[in-house]
Amino acid sequence: MSKWTAKDVLRADQFTKEEIATILELAGEYERALSDGRTLDVMKGLVLSTLFFEPSTRTRLSFETAMLRLGGGVVSVSEAKSTSASKGESLHDTIRTVEGYADVIVLRHPQIGAADEAARATDKPVLNAGDGAGQHPTQSLLDLYTITKETGRIDTLTVALAGDLKNGRTVHSLALLLANYEVQFVFIAPPALRMPDAICNELDQRGVRIQQTDDLATGIEQADVLYMTRIQRERFDDPSAYDRLKDSYVLTRDLVESAKDGIVVMHPLPRVNEIATDVDDYGKAAYFRQAANGVPVRMALLALVSGRA
Amino acid sequence: MSKWTAKDVLRADQFTKEEIATILELAGEYERALSDGRTLDVMKGLVLSTLFFEPSTRTRLSFETAMLRLGGGVVSVSEAKSTSASKGESLHDTIRTVEGYADVIVLRHPQIGAADEAARATDKPVLNAGDGAGQHPTQSLLDLYTITKETGRIDTLTVALAGDLKNGRTVHSLALLLANYEVQFVFIAPPALRMPDAICNELDQRGVRIQQTDDLATGIEQADVLYMTRIQRERFDDPSAYDRLKDSYVLTRDLVESAKDGIVVMHPLPRVNEIATDVDDYGKAAYFRQAANGVPVRMALLALVSGRA
Amino acid sequence: MSKWTAKDVLRADQFTKEEIATILELAGEYERALSDGRTLDVMKGLVLSTLFFEPSTRTRLSFETAMLRLGGGVVSVSEAKSTSASKGESLHDTIRTVEGYADVIVLRHPQIGAADEAARATDKPVLNAGDGAGQHPTQSLLDLYTITKETGRIDTLTVALAGDLKNGRTVHSLALLLANYEVQFVFIAPPALRMPDAICNELDQRGVRIQQTDDLATGIEQADVLYMTRIQRERFDDPSAYDRLKDSYVLTRDLVESAKDGIVVMHPLPRVNEIATDVDDYGKAAYFRQAANGVPVRMALLALVSGRA
Repeated sequence: MSKWTAKDVLRADQFTKEEIATILELAGEYERALSDGRTLDVMKGLVLSTLFFEPSTRTRLSFETAMLRLGGGVVSVSEAKSTSASKGESLHDTIRTVEGYADVIVLRHPQIGAADEAARATDKPVLNAGDGAGQHPTQSLLDLYTITKETGRIDTLTVALAGDLKNGRTVHSLALLLANYEVQFVFIAPPALRMPDAICNELDQRGVRIQQTDDLATGIEQADVLYMTRIQRERFDDPSAYDRLKDSYVLTRDLVESAKDGIVVMHPLPRVNEIATDVDDYGKAAYFRQAANGVPVRMALLALVSGRA
Repeated sequence: MSKWTAKDVLRADQFTKEEIATILELAGEYERALSDGRTLDVMKGLVLSTLFFEPSTRTRLSFETAMLRLGGGVVSVSEAKSTSASKGESLHDTIRTVEGYADVIVLRHPQIGAADEAARATDKPVLNAGDGAGQHPTQSLLDLYTITKETGRIDTLTVALAGDLKNGRTVHSLALLLANYEVQFVFIAPPALRMPDAICNELDQRGVRIQQTDDLATGIEQADVLYMTRIQRERFDDPSAYDRLKDSYVLTRDLVESAKDGIVVMHPLPRVNEIATDVDDYGKAAYFRQAANGVPVRMALLALVSGRA
Repeated sequence: MSKWTAKDVLRADQFTKEEIATILELAGEYERALSDGRTLDVMKGLVLSTLFFEPSTRTRLSFETAMLRLGGGVVSVSEAKSTSASKGESLHDTIRTVEGYADVIVLRHPQIGAADEAARATDKPVLNAGDGAGQHPTQSLLDLYTITKETGRIDTLTVALAGDLKNGRTVHSLALLLANYEVQFVFIAPPALRMPDAICNELDQRGVRIQQTDDLATGIEQADVLYMTRIQRERFDDPSAYDRLKDSYVLTRDLVESAKDGIVVMHPLPRVNEIATDVDDYGKAAYFRQAANGVPVRMALLALVSGRA
């Protein structure tokens, strides 16, 4: 892995296609090692500090599990209010302090740009585990890993993104990441929650074909992958507008059966009711496997930024 | 240990006498290993996730210590409000996600039946660390382990249970578990807080002899073991009724001296004032050893459900 | 290390000069081991319990990192409200319970004397990580370790302590600890926040030379080491008194340049604004290295009290 140069993992769009291939390949190796019951000591003697200035149990447990599976140790801060920030300390100073303890830092923070600020403060690797409405690159990478595992490829896929495409950090990052490949998109959203023009324009410029619709059933007719997200009532100025359309953005088993054969169903979780629970038994319902994929992908990233891969 | 078949530990009454013997014997082996200073790697490479939807420091630390003592790793959620449940996620989905990270799950939850629901959601082992007013099986097993260690036997014992026998989950489970053996009971409680008829009837049908009294001094005259619990003011409709009797359910050193010689004093802890602190020096005051016994008993359970015993 | 006899680390002034030398020397060895990339297993098989009845992320992470770097395991309670104390349990009982799980206990507690009480309750080692306005001995020891590393000596140094010298637990402990050596002090504080007479008198009796001033620029002219602390608005009855002097207790880069050549700048952190951020680039700005020194110093203490050094 002599080609790896990134000190940090800050943005989904920071990686070249070659680097992404390196990450996905190494994640695959680690996943096979784990399923073979092999014990790894890639990070033996190293300490990860997870710093979660806002709670995100899923992401925190996934990173901490990844570190333990690599043979490393973890020190954890799961809540902002127990940090020195509550005493007026700057993020810069918190990071300068924690770099004195840990070898790698995973940061979750409510403010856009926090991870970049942290990375500038220290020579130790910083992994962005979500910076408010900003980036959540390890989510995008595990989404990509899931797509390749579930479909066996990325090129030539038609990927449908459905739900709240306006506010969803996850779908924005994933769309831009997938634009590195030969994919086409179907964007399925109510008019008020469409994919932002800025992203559509960038995809256009990169020659990616996009279809748009506000009808879920229509949108999934040709899709190889459906990435569902939740539509939140609070996004609507007019609650009755939400009530009129909410049921039409619920993926039912009937809808799945009417979609393209073998369509892969993904969701970043947590789900509330936007996927009916009887879809869980559908063989290509991949959302729980998707969550599990966070572990090998984060193992790969931890090892790569630590120079242990 | 080829006979072990249970995937989960959900209820104190799920085990056969043979299975209980297996647990207690393995706990004894682990306790000896620890006191000999031996380092175990029974759970090496495995990860435990503790999921505490309500806080219980004692139980959580005990399970996490057990996992570390076996050479395993731990990822921990110590508070519900930092889980995805606060975003509307179902327990089923939380468990389906965590099974993608961890090899074993320990769940504490305020709702009866939560552990059963969790166990149905996953093929990974689930250990119930208390489901509201429901079960807390590992507490009952460590109680049993303590009785055998302190008295050298279970059969032929007279066990007094004292305090709030109506609402105490702990004493209900312990009574039913002990009914597998040749024991007799003394139930010591104020009239308003007596052992429920349902449990007395089941014990009757199984041929267990029961005496009942509301006087602590009388109740412990013949007992080999006294299991104290706390009487809480809020259980009484009439606070003055509580004030009248509260002092008569405090175990003093004088009472201990007047009881049967060598009586073993137990308590699930935390204690507030229902055992005077000068009882702590009494040689057979076993409650702190009882707490410590949680570690080898939980080590045994973790190893057994993981197929590593 | 056959001379080590202390079961606990409770007060900065409990140690002889010889014991302090042992701690600092061992910390130096561990620091070299870590910087050489050596993996230690000094505490292999042992479990540390951190019990933080009030949050202190810096101290907790530093202790937990120290334990992991020695090859040990950690179980952690980061918030009082999730402990049995909230159910009315005494500190004595909490410690008696935790001693059944862990081999070493680190306690942070809001009440003076809590660590002493804990140490009396158990035969296991207890390390005081701050007991309210009482002691915080590991901070003082890491301060001392930092001074020796940054200056190459302790004897003959002139140490300036600046800011709130009246209420600062940290500066009181450090002053008394340094009084074991051939140092002299400059105390720099506004009249209302001067070093307490009790401490000045004790230093006098031990023959330590003290100068006092309320002017930061004057105070640092002859100092080899400047230990800054924060002046808090809430310490003043009259807020306008605070506003009049707050700016004169901010260390700027200009002030550093006007001070004695090579002056070492220290601070217990977190800093708010009492050191300008452009001081960070000054070569002898030692406060982040000081924080990092907490790890080897705490490693040394953990190993020594556990009989593993």
